[in-house]
Amino acid sequence: MDTSKRLAKLREYMEENGISLSIIMHPENQYYISGFKAIIYSRPIALMVEPAVTALIVPGLEEKHAEAEAAVDRLYIYYEHPEKTEDPKSYMEHLDKIISAFPKGTRIGVEASVMSMGLANHIKNAGYELLDIGRKISEMRFIKDEQEIELLIEAGKLVSLALSESLEKARAGISEIELDQYGNKALFEETAKKYPNASLDYFVMSPSGLIRSVMPHVFSNTRKLTENDIVIHSRQVGLNGYRAECERTFFVGEPTAKQKEVFNVAVAAQKAAMEIIKPGIMAKEVDMAARQIIQKAGYGEYSIHRTGHGIGLGVHEEPSLRFDSDLILQEGMAFSIEPGIYIPGIGGFRHSDTIIITKDGARVITDYPWELKDLIF
Amino acid sequence: MDTSKRLAKLREYMEENGISLSIIMHPENQYYISGFKAIIYSRPIALMVEPAVTALIVPGLEEKHAEAEAAVDRLYIYYEHPEKTEDPKSYMEHLDKIISAFPKGTRIGVEASVMSMGLANHIKNAGYELLDIGRKISEMRFIKDEQEIELLIEAGKLVSLALSESLEKARAGISEIELDQYGNKALFEETAKKYPNASLDYFVMSPSGLIRSVMPHVFSNTRKLTENDIVIHSRQVGLNGYRAECERTFFVGEPTAKQKEVFNVAVAAQKAAMEIIKPGIMAKEVDMAARQIIQKAGYGEYSIHRTGHGIGLGVHEEPSLRFDSDLILQEGMAFSIEPGIYIPGIGGFRHSDTIIITKDGARVITDYPWELKDLIF
Repeated sequence: MDTSKRLAKLREYMEENGISLSIIMHPENQYYISGFKAIIYSRPIALMVEPAVTALIVPGLEEKHAEAEAAVDRLYIYYEHPEKTEDPKSYMEHLDKIISAFPKGTRIGVEASVMSMGLANHIKNAGYELLDIGRKISEMRFIKDEQEIELLIEAGKLVSLALSESLEKARAGISEIELDQYGNKALFEETAKKYPNASLDYFVMSPSGLIRSVMPHVFSNTRKLTENDIVIHSRQVGLNGYRAECERTFFVGEPTAKQKEVFNVAVAAQKAAMEIIKPGIMAKEVDMAARQIIQKAGYGEYSIHRTGHGIGLGVHEEPSLRFDSDLILQEGMAFSIEPGIYIPGIGGFRHSDTIIITKDGARVITDYPWELKDLIF
Repeated sequence: MDTSKRLAKLREYMEENGISLSIIMHPENQYYISGFKAIIYSRPIALMVEPAVTALIVPGLEEKHAEAEAAVDRLYIYYEHPEKTEDPKSYMEHLDKIISAFPKGTRIGVEASVMSMGLANHIKNAGYELLDIGRKISEMRFIKDEQEIELLIEAGKLVSLALSESLEKARAGISEIELDQYGNKALFEETAKKYPNASLDYFVMSPSGLIRSVMPHVFSNTRKLTENDIVIHSRQVGLNGYRAECERTFFVGEPTAKQKEVFNVAVAAQKAAMEIIKPGIMAKEVDMAARQIIQKAGYGEYSIHRTGHGIGLGVHEEPSLRFDSDLILQEGMAFSIEPGIYIPGIGGFRHSDTIIITKDGARVITDYPWELKDLIF
């Protein structure tokens, strides 16, 4: 991944705002700017951006990994073994040293919604001024470049395949997590075949039945599907970090007349949003297009979340398609389109597809039948 | 899960420190104190603890879920649909309202390493004093109670089973992520069978070959195992949030003489740590027991991480078995034991098992053969 244009844009922003050093702590933003994607558990990683130099502070056990993959000028390593007691033992030692090369009062860019209060206080107490650069990076990520769109499209194929494999196995008696597992298997096999040296992120959940399907976000559990169940099968796949989402509401056996009716309203709402979305309109117009159909059918109060969210490196990322957002949509933005209706005693209804805004409309990058007749197993 | 004792302990600490309200933002700590385990993407959740009342601020799409599972006195919901425009549309509106009931200058407890600088500034600017309670909750989590130990033991069984199923499939030509997948499948089937209504967390990676196995933390990718490969297969499974870890270094075909030698040093180091660990000794003594064996064999400089980390709700949690930690170990602490040796051109060598400290030693809760003869496939 060529991250040089992104870095240049960040530096431009830093210059405009008199920022001499930026400290980037968010793993997604680190990957976005430096190409380094690490598994971060208890050992912090910091990306330091100066006007002329970039550096990563990494733990000893990421040294080889960062040497191989990080597009930065310098690496600072902190160690946790006694052979290296002369060297820094925590990331803070490196951070303090890098910062202290700047005169007190220097403006330092940080991600205000990510940097911890503890670290922020530490830097402020050392005499520096902190400015938010998180908003800027988030906005840079709104518009996907060609490399990102390519990955998103491939992720769209993978997530559609995985969803399809899971749905094929749907039947009474199978548990939510078993259902998930079939698609995962296909996902891994296909990825291994088609994308050598790729990394995968994935998430899947299948809340089932009248109680669980009305909870839009719950981990899959060991509940077994029963005859006449309603299920929302929900998946994300990230290929080299870039994610696409695909979700389908389906039935085991025949739905009730009421379920059929609500299902069709949810499908019509999704269609309406997918038809209207294009550059130049406001985010809320997309939400409204879906919502009006749901409201007209009398289910407005059960449509308890926005019509979609930005997607890319983040599971959810900004901007979102929410009823109160005036943001003007642009070519290159990527969204999930997923209006939902959740009625206690009747069930939860939501399909999700991922789209990328094109010059005059949108390209749908996920693919699975959405009509009722194809979603009764 | 009965969380009442934990809540009582936190309140005791709040009283001792003159804290009238605590705001808990860390998902693991929210689950630990309230029993509510949510999938948190872009919609924040806050747990508010007062001396007499607990409350959760959740988004509309978690309303039903929180009603069913959260052990709190009150729920505050924020909505993102226009039918509810009279109600708060963001968690901040609820938070501000709850805080504003307290006089300016009130001490508010927050997790300093978790709360964002942005939110902390917002609360401070409103006239309140922030004190860290994160350290206290982290320390409470050091010692596992009976319910937690029960879950850890079951997680240990599950992770051992999954590892065993993956290793059985090891052969040249299979990719890292396919290898992972076999164990996942077994994991899901077994969980569905034995633990109805449980939720699962899991992580798995299998860095393989001379280049990737010396990187202790890299995502599995589509690299195919080859004849004479060295692989570290690494797994964690969380049952209802509680995690156990099991890892084995294995070979596809015969290792070299040098690989055999280093493998045996790593195994001896892990054994030494597992034999010495017990209540009353310092964390660094465990690290030293393993490290001395590695140093004596001449590989000290390649043993680039601590001997183990705390484990429980966290993938890694405090305390850790590190060369500079004087912490006295106590009954009920849970650790991974995993000294590692990573030599460029020769390979990475690390087994990990999970132990719980008992009255006079430690109970190993993961189980798979660790000798070379059992790890050549």
